Amino acid sequence: MAILAVTEQLLAAKKAAGLTFADLEAKVGADEVWIASVFYRQASASKEEATKMIEAIGADSSLIEALMECPVKGSLDPLVPTDPLIYRFYEIMQVYGMPIKTVVHEKFGDGIMSAIDFTIDVEKEEDSKGDRVKVIMCGKFLPYKKW
Amino acid sequence: MAILAVTEQLLAAKKAAGLTFADLEAKVGADEVWIASVFYRQASASKEEATKMIEAIGADSSLIEALMECPVKGSLDPLVPTDPLIYRFYEIMQVYGMPIKTVVHEKFGDGIMSAIDFTIDVEKEEDSKGDRVKVIMCGKFLPYKKW
Amino acid sequence: MAILAVTEQLLAAKKAAGLTFADLEAKVGADEVWIASVFYRQASASKEEATKMIEAIGADSSLIEALMECPVKGSLDPLVPTDPLIYRFYEIMQVYGMPIKTVVHEKFGDGIMSAIDFTIDVEKEEDSKGDRVKVIMCGKFLPYKKW
Amino acid sequence: MAILAVTEQLLAAKKAAGLTFADLEAKVGADEVWIASVFYRQASASKEEATKMIEAIGADSSLIEALMECPVKGSLDPLVPTDPLIYRFYEIMQVYGMPIKTVVHEKFGDGIMSAIDFTIDVEKEEDSKGDRVKVIMCGKFLPYKKW
Amino acid sequence: MAILAVTEQLLAAKKAAGLTFADLEAKVGADEVWIASVFYRQASASKEEATKMIEAIGADSSLIEALMECPVKGSLDPLVPTDPLIYRFYEIMQVYGMPIKTVVHEKFGDGIMSAIDFTIDVEKEEDSKGDRVKVIMCGKFLPYKKW
Amino acid sequence: MAILAVTEQLLAAKKAAGLTFADLEAKVGADEVWIASVFYRQASASKEEATKMIEAIGADSSLIEALMECPVKGSLDPLVPTDPLIYRFYEIMQVYGMPIKTVVHEKFGDGIMSAIDFTIDVEKEEDSKGDRVKVIMCGKFLPYKKW
Amino acid sequence: MAILAVTEQLLAAKKAAGLTFADLEAKVGADEVWIASVFYRQASASKEEATKMIEAIGADSSLIEALMECPVKGSLDPLVPTDPLIYRFYEIMQVYGMPIKTVVHEKFGDGIMSAIDFTIDVEKEEDSKGDRVKVIMCGKFLPYKKW
Amino acid sequence: MAILAVTEQLLAAKKAAGLTFADLEAKVGADEVWIASVFYRQASASKEEATKMIEAIGADSSLIEALMECPVKGSLDPLVPTDPLIYRFYEIMQVYGMPIKTVVHEKFGDGIMSAIDFTIDVEKEEDSKGDRVKVIMCGKFLPYKKW
Amino acid sequence: MAILAVTEQLLAAKKAAGLTFADLEAKVGADEVWIASVFYRQASASKEEATKMIEAIGADSSLIEALMECPVKGSLDPLVPTDPLIYRFYEIMQVYGMPIKTVVHEKFGDGIMSAIDFTIDVEKEEDSKGDRVKVIMCGKFLPYKKW
Amino acid sequence: MAILAVTEQLLAAKKAAGLTFADLEAKVGADEVWIASVFYRQASASKEEATKMIEAIGADSSLIEALMECPVKGSLDPLVPTDPLIYRFYEIMQVYGMPIKTVVHEKFGDGIMSAIDFTIDVEKEEDSKGDRVKVIMCGKFLPYKKW
Repeated sequence: MAILAVTEQLLAAKKAAGLTFADLEAKVGADEVWIASVFYRQASASKEEATKMIEAIGADSSLIEALMECPVKGSLDPLVPTDPLIYRFYEIMQVYGMPIKTVVHEKFGDGIMSAIDFTIDVEKEEDSKGDRVKVIMCGKFLPYKKW
Repeated sequence: MAILAVTEQLLAAKKAAGLTFADLEAKVGADEVWIASVFYRQASASKEEATKMIEAIGADSSLIEALMECPVKGSLDPLVPTDPLIYRFYEIMQVYGMPIKTVVHEKFGDGIMSAIDFTIDVEKEEDSKGDRVKVIMCGKFLPYKKW
Repeated sequence: MAILAVTEQLLAAKKAAGLTFADLEAKVGADEVWIASVFYRQASASKEEATKMIEAIGADSSLIEALMECPVKGSLDPLVPTDPLIYRFYEIMQVYGMPIKTVVHEKFGDGIMSAIDFTIDVEKEEDSKGDRVKVIMCGKFLPYKKW
Repeated sequence: MAILAVTEQLLAAKKAAGLTFADLEAKVGADEVWIASVFYRQASASKEEATKMIEAIGADSSLIEALMECPVKGSLDPLVPTDPLIYRFYEIMQVYGMPIKTVVHEKFGDGIMSAIDFTIDVEKEEDSKGDRVKVIMCGKFLPYKKW
Repeated sequence: MAILAVTEQLLAAKKAAGLTFADLEAKVGADEVWIASVFYRQASASKEEATKMIEAIGADSSLIEALMECPVKGSLDPLVPTDPLIYRFYEIMQVYGMPIKTVVHEKFGDGIMSAIDFTIDVEKEEDSKGDRVKVIMCGKFLPYKKW
Repeated sequence: MAILAVTEQLLAAKKAAGLTFADLEAKVGADEVWIASVFYRQASASKEEATKMIEAIGADSSLIEALMECPVKGSLDPLVPTDPLIYRFYEIMQVYGMPIKTVVHEKFGDGIMSAIDFTIDVEKEEDSKGDRVKVIMCGKFLPYKKW
Repeated sequence: MAILAVTEQLLAAKKAAGLTFADLEAKVGADEVWIASVFYRQASASKEEATKMIEAIGADSSLIEALMECPVKGSLDPLVPTDPLIYRFYEIMQVYGMPIKTVVHEKFGDGIMSAIDFTIDVEKEEDSKGDRVKVIMCGKFLPYKKW
Repeated sequence: MAILAVTEQLLAAKKAAGLTFADLEAKVGADEVWIASVFYRQASASKEEATKMIEAIGADSSLIEALMECPVKGSLDPLVPTDPLIYRFYEIMQVYGMPIKTVVHEKFGDGIMSAIDFTIDVEKEEDSKGDRVKVIMCGKFLPYKKW
Repeated sequence: MAILAVTEQLLAAKKAAGLTFADLEAKVGADEVWIASVFYRQASASKEEATKMIEAIGADSSLIEALMECPVKGSLDPLVPTDPLIYRFYEIMQVYGMPIKTVVHEKFGDGIMSAIDFTIDVEKEEDSKGDRVKVIMCGKFLPYKKW
Repeated sequence: MAILAVTEQLLAAKKAAGLTFADLEAKVGADEVWIASVFYRQASASKEEATKMIEAIGADSSLIEALMECPVKGSLDPLVPTDPLIYRFYEIMQVYGMPIKTVVHEKFGDGIMSAIDFTIDVEKEEDSKGDRVKVIMCGKFLPYKKW
């Protein structure tokens, strides 16, 4: 995965400012994963949101507009990602994809979980046997239309 | 994705018994997604668990042993799945993969969320603007070992 | 693309009944493309809809239930389809994909056309220089959620 | 998908001129999707059309000739596109490809919808439950020749 | 490439009748390559044409209808065919694709050679240094429509 | 497909000279498709041929040597080309590959049409219903050797 | 790689007869690799050759005709073969492909080694440090035709 | 296949010196194919060998060290190479792979021909019907170890 | 991965006999991983070894010969395996491949670790923080031959 | 595989310092494979570890921070690596993957060997018949969680 030039500039400014995305969550008033998505150019911000982000990390205001554009999304180079952290999501889909499909159909009928009207959160769950990563996805159920 | 013969037998018996996986959750005392994973031969049950499942759906006891074997896991035929419900998880990985990686590293350091010491739940969140699907993944954080 | 056994049974019954999908549109009260989607097991029908379809083509009533299940969707074998009629849709996406993306973003903002809350119609447009195929897709615009 | 240098110049000029493709439709007298296709170098313009476009966006006249060349078309990098908006067209082809093929054959006989003698329009359909994207494809039916 | 069952039946009958496709060309009144395309289920025949073919090879008349259906076309299993004779056409496209594209554009403008309104002939050209295979493709030029 | 730097130089010189490949055919005394193949670095010229070409388009004589080298041939980036004009040759191979194979074997025995001892011509066939592109391939038949 | 039914029959008969391909070389009067190619349906035999082979292994004479047909050649399932012995030829092509190309061009000019007018032999070279496999390929040089 | 910068420098120097790889074979005292493999960075030379090569072609002595490094080997870009000369080796593996495997096992038992303890030679065999390319591969037989 | 019929028979007999591969190691006098490789038809046994295995699990002696054949090796269906246990070896190669390559070259020079003259062992290392899997690979170093 | 710029700088400094990774193991107090992994940006070091490494090779201290970042891991360009040394690990997975899976399940139950809580060592085993490469992998067994 090639990191975009604009993303590198943003990450460098953020690093220079000594801030984590959790810090930005507090300053910008939006979720840290979503802010990271804007930085990686997978999501687009409003002018107000972009301005807050750029100011928070002390980057050049000429970058504000870049954060407002609708990006071409998704860009893990090989179709099956090689990074172990990201690959685990592919594995989860391979192993639990059909079970989830069946359970969703039983609970909701024929349709899908939207990946657009959708939020995703990452939380740290402390555990004496080793902390746990909690990823919470929440998407609107979209029933298949008939016509 | 070719459905395994044993899975088809199990699903037919479950249908004949008129039970959902949520019903099985109550009867077997394990999560519905995990039970579905056992039925789709992505997870293995103990003898006691397998027996409860087979009895709950009234299937032939000769199937108990099949549920106890360690399956070859993962079998969505094309590398990029075509089923829209399952594909959305691929899309989420493509769009939110790098942002999540960054946030996990900030919260935990270099490592991954385990997909083995891992649970996944599906919940229905009622919402007047349209119900929402909530998928909660929870995996142990595994830090990279140095040596 | 392997045709499913159930689809072959349905198409054989429909042929024996001497009906086109346009005829079924009139008898069933639903669009011909959607009915074909149910026959090809890409969409699921309600009990009432399935019953009407089976009765219209004079097939065995034991097939009604099959039309009500949520199918695993999408199954053109090679990732790039070889059938010339179907391939043209791939080519359209390759050639006009970015232009459409840009125009949709200008008209609607960042988001997508749903392929779930979605209808598709095929019409014949008579033309002295050669008839034309008109394909009308209509999907709800889904704006990306921020959180 | 790498954006061509010439496309980037054109989009920058258009942005500086504060025009949408819908505005260009009015100024150039051609459809906005087709104009976007010329900008993305998927279609070629006549000298007159190219001149109008370049003048409308106030770009350098040296770019006129570039718009007149026959481009190498189609260039979504991975065979299966990852951008969610563009992917939906792939999904539509996967899910509705065979049903459409069958209906077209019933209406027209053995042949295809041309993707060359072809137009595509994008319209906004206002709807109180959420606006809808309407994509209208219209291609000449080409029957298979026998010889 | 799996040979279809119907194709195997047709080829067996033709072999039993001791006929080449060139013989069928004379009997059926259509080109041998096209007739072979119908046998391999890549093209569809009219009732009259199908009847002539079946009678010429002395096959069962129940096969007539199969030749009249619109087939799912194209089915060389790997995307890059391995059979040396067929692969050479892939190699020709790889080596001469861009040169032909340029020459066609110079002669005709932006557009394509139709592969639907199209004929293909195979001739034997006797040559003392070794006979030559002549393949003549002839397709209607389709200019890109502007709109 | 990335155009090679040397090809771009040659095409620019040819454009500045206002010549088509058909014009070069007359000046150089070789077929236009073959000359285009040399320009696209898919074929190699002798010193005399290269000199004629470079002089005809008024390019720098330092380019002569480049046209004499044996190129690494074939370079359509994706395995299945996306350009519609070039793709049609892929489609022809998919649809008519097996029929041609069978007819060639009937006419010549087991072997192939050479793509090396091979010529390819493009002609314009005027037709009141729309001009036609004629592509004539002619390759030596090579019988399989036994040993 | 799925072994064809006819190949399995031939190999079983050969095994029952207790013969190696080297034995068949002596009995049939043709090279063992070529005979193996006929058995694996990658090459076609004349009636006389096929008869000798079938008689040598004591198989049913109804198999003679099968050996005379022009097979669809090449059928290692994955594009990159997994069998270690066969893979080594792929690795040799990857590592030594460009060096061989260069040396052939220096020795012969622009062209290829035919894989059709071609023989391949396997010999055992005894060596005190470990026997060696010698594979000798010999194909006609085919110069690129100009036209 | 992108040619490495160091390879381009070496080939340019060799060209300027007016030497073929066969000339280098005489000067360096090693096979021409192996020397070409070192130039293409598929094999590594000792200091003495590298020095001889660099001196023979009159290149800068700073390049000596580059020839001594262990390269990352194999780099034909597409998995199936498109260059016709190189592709023929792929075709040979597809067509003759299984026959060779069988003959090797009969002659040697279960094991492989090493591609490491391996030499490959290219010879020109003059023939009045057309010269022939002879490629002689010779690799140590490695039997599978049991443990 | 489709399990071969013979492998299924062997595994069933072994299960009926109530033996693990570790038990077979003791009875047969060969490593458990290698015995499993013979059962999965990835390695070939001598007559004596095969007989011991078949007798140990009480299978039909007609299976002895099957274990003696040289199998077509390697057959994980997708190029990138989906089973999580097997995938980890792919990931190890992705993450540690280049570091290992460098270290091996520093220790041994240019060459490879043989995967043929090779053994692999699996051991259980008890550990109070969780048992560990130890996989020990040991292959002969093969230096690249120069010629 | 493109080598990262930072890796190239590190390897050049290490070369200038005349050190092997085994030398660094002694100086840094960590395993040579792991140190190589940090250099190839597949693993991240603490500030103290990074400082030791940079000082040991005499590189610029501005590189320290680069070694502390969590890299995007895994980047062998083709999905199946072409370098022979690295490919052997792919082959081992293809050939011994299922046998290892079975033995691990017999020894540990359903679960995997972690590739994160994991070490890998490379040792040279001297042997009069040729030295051997020993690769020792040791990963925590992770049992599948049930819930």
